[in-house]
Amino acid sequence: MKITLDSPLDMHLHLREDEMLRNVAPFSAKDFSGAMIMPNLVPPIDNLKRLLQYKADIYDATKGEIFKPYLTAFLKNYTREELLTFKDEIIAIKLYPAGATTNSDGGVEDLSHAADTLKLMEELGIPLSVHGENPKSHVLEREKDFLPTYEQIAKDYPKLKIIMEHITCVDAVKLLDKYDNLYATLTVQHLLITFDDIAGGLLNPHLFCKPIAKTFEDRDALRKLAFSAHPKVMFGSDSAPHPKSSKEGATSAAGCFTTPIALPCLVELFEKFDALDNLQAFISDNAKKIYGINPPEKKVTLEKKSFIVPEIYGDVVPTFAGEEVTWSVVSE
Amino acid sequence: MKITLDSPLDMHLHLREDEMLRNVAPFSAKDFSGAMIMPNLVPPIDNLKRLLQYKADIYDATKGEIFKPYLTAFLKNYTREELLTFKDEIIAIKLYPAGATTNSDGGVEDLSHAADTLKLMEELGIPLSVHGENPKSHVLEREKDFLPTYEQIAKDYPKLKIIMEHITCVDAVKLLDKYDNLYATLTVQHLLITFDDIAGGLLNPHLFCKPIAKTFEDRDALRKLAFSAHPKVMFGSDSAPHPKSSKEGATSAAGCFTTPIALPCLVELFEKFDALDNLQAFISDNAKKIYGINPPEKKVTLEKKSFIVPEIYGDVVPTFAGEEVTWSVVSE
Repeated sequence: MKITLDSPLDMHLHLREDEMLRNVAPFSAKDFSGAMIMPNLVPPIDNLKRLLQYKADIYDATKGEIFKPYLTAFLKNYTREELLTFKDEIIAIKLYPAGATTNSDGGVEDLSHAADTLKLMEELGIPLSVHGENPKSHVLEREKDFLPTYEQIAKDYPKLKIIMEHITCVDAVKLLDKYDNLYATLTVQHLLITFDDIAGGLLNPHLFCKPIAKTFEDRDALRKLAFSAHPKVMFGSDSAPHPKSSKEGATSAAGCFTTPIALPCLVELFEKFDALDNLQAFISDNAKKIYGINPPEKKVTLEKKSFIVPEIYGDVVPTFAGEEVTWSVVSE
Repeated sequence: MKITLDSPLDMHLHLREDEMLRNVAPFSAKDFSGAMIMPNLVPPIDNLKRLLQYKADIYDATKGEIFKPYLTAFLKNYTREELLTFKDEIIAIKLYPAGATTNSDGGVEDLSHAADTLKLMEELGIPLSVHGENPKSHVLEREKDFLPTYEQIAKDYPKLKIIMEHITCVDAVKLLDKYDNLYATLTVQHLLITFDDIAGGLLNPHLFCKPIAKTFEDRDALRKLAFSAHPKVMFGSDSAPHPKSSKEGATSAAGCFTTPIALPCLVELFEKFDALDNLQAFISDNAKKIYGINPPEKKVTLEKKSFIVPEIYGDVVPTFAGEEVTWSVVSE
């Protein structure tokens, strides 16, 4: 049994830089036609020179594959002139509340400080991509406590496309349809696991990411969105590689490296819930419409054949290392 | 500034066996006058011979110190004759729902199977100590979902003293006063941390235990009990040593090794909340009354002097390793 996906897209991807970029980018380039690349590096991606250098580095790390990187810039106060210099090189601008995730320390403390930039983005048609967590709340409440901010932005900038990235809770699902200009991405891990998988038995740092996976009710609400390929919802892995030494130790960094397992796990899950007919929309077509993009043509075929997830890729342990997935990506 | 505690007791302690026992027991023997020792070993403590051997091992590991181990047996179906053989060598019988915690696999699946034993315990005046979690529930709901079981036992065996061990949620606190025969222990970590400390920043496996620490509301309800030295509440550390290799890795075992920090952290916390006057009751007097025990006389003095928690004791990383506590136990 085989299934072929047309130009699958990962609309939320962390590729890092340098050695890590060269290690992980080929896995995205193998399975996806394109991906939206997150800008939270040190220093962040916030000017044309840095954007083009990073884009060149990504092409260099993925050469030989059909793979289009859609870059994003880090939200800060930009002037119109600054935005105009790199507007055509980005697909969105990314908001990380200060302290919310890896390398977000330069993020925005208070959205009112970015009002002029948001107005310009609305005018220039640049979407706003948001890591929607309130870092001051209890970790399980951070997304929920950020929802009023989503509402405020949606109301204040009605023509701004706002992407609620990697949503994890039922309340975010409910908010999605309340404003025309709200969209969302879903990761593979939040469709599969709950907090119980992280801490119900032995603690599993390789399932730990931000926002943290929550309850069965939350997961089921996300599944419903994905399985129905809700037109405002796209796949975005939030795949976030960390070296093994940062994941296994006295502390563990937040982030799941899911790129190599994303398509096999999604096909397995959609098959299990009899939703395979909607996978193409979830994995590509919705994103094309939402962002108005035309990614390179690329067919990716999966076969119902056991895939034992490798224990490690370079120095990065993937999610579900050593476990079996019932579908594999077919090498060309 | 100094404070002297009279015969401090740790009414819930895991000492393990062999090398681990010899590593950790001296820290309990140094700071406490006595402790209630958990029986979930492999094989479990469930007969007189094993009880006495384990007691001898504990005395051997703590020789030179004033320290009385109060042993417990593992709950299974015992006949009257069996109970009578070791009744005077134990302080309680411990119920671990199967699968709830370390070495609980031999635990009780369904309490109705233990009905005869519970009846005998009630008759013979043997308290029931309970790890109250429903292993089938989501990890954050397991204690809450076990509360109806506490209620049922409390009603069915009105003369059985039931100790709700290491309670962590506000609903358990509320249940405490509903039945005369319910009591509770509180750990030091559940008075200090919430789930946010485990997973709000980097994931911290050394703060991971079962039941898992929960919300601010839950913690504050526990604090209220402790600071008022509620007469049905005792200190029980649930200190549970694991070798570093079991805590730091691809997975992490549940358990916090808190013995060396317990008294310094408690004094610091009770001082901060102006509750030092009630610490003696919480740390010893309540337990003496509840269990009707008379532990060896032992004065333990703490001084307001910086204590930097060691990074490791043998192969066990303590809770708050490397951090500073403002009180230290004074060596004699």
